[in-house]
Amino acid sequence: MSYARQLLDTYPRTFNLDAGVLAATTDAVNDCAQACTGCADDDLSEPDIVELVKCIRLCLDCADVCTATVRVISRQTEYDANLTRSVLEACATACKSSGDECERHAQMHEHCRVCAEACRRCEQACRQLLAAMQ
Amino acid sequence: MSYARQLLDTYPRTFNLDAGVLAATTDAVNDCAQACTGCADDDLSEPDIVELVKCIRLCLDCADVCTATVRVISRQTEYDANLTRSVLEACATACKSSGDECERHAQMHEHCRVCAEACRRCEQACRQLLAAMQ
Amino acid sequence: MSYARQLLDTYPRTFNLDAGVLAATTDAVNDCAQACTGCADDDLSEPDIVELVKCIRLCLDCADVCTATVRVISRQTEYDANLTRSVLEACATACKSSGDECERHAQMHEHCRVCAEACRRCEQACRQLLAAMQ
Amino acid sequence: MSYARQLLDTYPRTFNLDAGVLAATTDAVNDCAQACTGCADDDLSEPDIVELVKCIRLCLDCADVCTATVRVISRQTEYDANLTRSVLEACATACKSSGDECERHAQMHEHCRVCAEACRRCEQACRQLLAAMQ
Repeated sequence: MSYARQLLDTYPRTFNLDAGVLAATTDAVNDCAQACTGCADDDLSEPDIVELVKCIRLCLDCADVCTATVRVISRQTEYDANLTRSVLEACATACKSSGDECERHAQMHEHCRVCAEACRRCEQACRQLLAAMQ
Repeated sequence: MSYARQLLDTYPRTFNLDAGVLAATTDAVNDCAQACTGCADDDLSEPDIVELVKCIRLCLDCADVCTATVRVISRQTEYDANLTRSVLEACATACKSSGDECERHAQMHEHCRVCAEACRRCEQACRQLLAAMQ
Repeated sequence: MSYARQLLDTYPRTFNLDAGVLAATTDAVNDCAQACTGCADDDLSEPDIVELVKCIRLCLDCADVCTATVRVISRQTEYDANLTRSVLEACATACKSSGDECERHAQMHEHCRVCAEACRRCEQACRQLLAAMQ
Repeated sequence: MSYARQLLDTYPRTFNLDAGVLAATTDAVNDCAQACTGCADDDLSEPDIVELVKCIRLCLDCADVCTATVRVISRQTEYDANLTRSVLEACATACKSSGDECERHAQMHEHCRVCAEACRRCEQACRQLLAAMQ
């Protein structure tokens, strides 16, 4: 069981969201932050770096937005639905952009294939949590 | 002249946004990240901490969203308007939430008054940049 | 297999460190960043918050240092051993401080027990990576 | 007066460090985080990007370490001198690495000259704060 789930299960009050969905999203966002940081670095070591500039930029953005998102959704105290929604939407947008770009390079670069998968999972997880919040 | 402005002025390509507006927003967001981190910490040292839990939580969120935002808008390479817009909206939302809450405590706590000002400036700057992007 | 490991296995060049040790550390640090963010939030919802102020502060610090550390060790391009070592030492120090404090509250608060475990694992992982770098 | 200084002046308890030195360091570290993010992005848009890979990597690291550092030193509650010292040392090390590398490109690239200045100031500020802590 991930720490995200364990910490939700030991939260001292109640919260409105499904703990399973919330923990899965938290883990997917945290994984995506790391994967995008790693993929941007892999790009920097590729001989065709010039073709990968957009990938680097979008992976850096995605890592930064995921890092903020995982922190916001890790907090249940004085939950602000409006803010959470806005952050999840930005995160899904960032994942869509970097996921699309990584997918374009997936056949050429294995790390882009791996990172595209992390981005797709994260985008989907954010959208599921958004749906669960309705 | 702030580093944000100097780095925009030395950017090797052209970009669509007004450098003055973009640099001012970057500085306002960076300042707000620091102010919110400081205010959340000040709250932790207040005797009436129990009244300030919402303020702590929203300032932590705002700091995290501002940290991501300042990074995204510091990048001009392969600019993604859709992503920038989404991140700026999340940042304005976070600043509104923490600005409102800090304002409630502004008469009681000077640091909340200072932080509310930083949040208002940041929110306004994000909205100005959003308007400039249209 | 974690994304950290997959991204190391698809890194286009060679690197000096053992991929298994590096990936395990990366995952432990990323997990700890999330756990500390969650634990600080759990503390904010506890009735005895006044007793937990030190725990909140150290968990916030630990989350921030872990977030920086996971990014630095996710990069292999133009590896700077001196910088990596310094960051890992700061991370181990942060984990020791928050791990010790969480342990003090572990019998009273389950989330502190969980977070202390995440901090201990992370500290140990950082020290193992430091040892592997010699 | 910067927000860092205003928030130190409104901190509800006392703290051991000189507020002027601490606020100046906080501002220098926050500025450096932004400058390094901007310089790494400028590098991505340069025609000689291949020569700038080390600069990109070290500026990304420096931004991440500065982001963590500005947060840690923005907190006075339950101050942990050991942790603060370790983080400041990592920050000075990161600034030294990226400052040295940026300086190598300063004649060729104006943004590297600007960023090198931000890194030098930040490194010096961290060392001054470390000295003030003795």
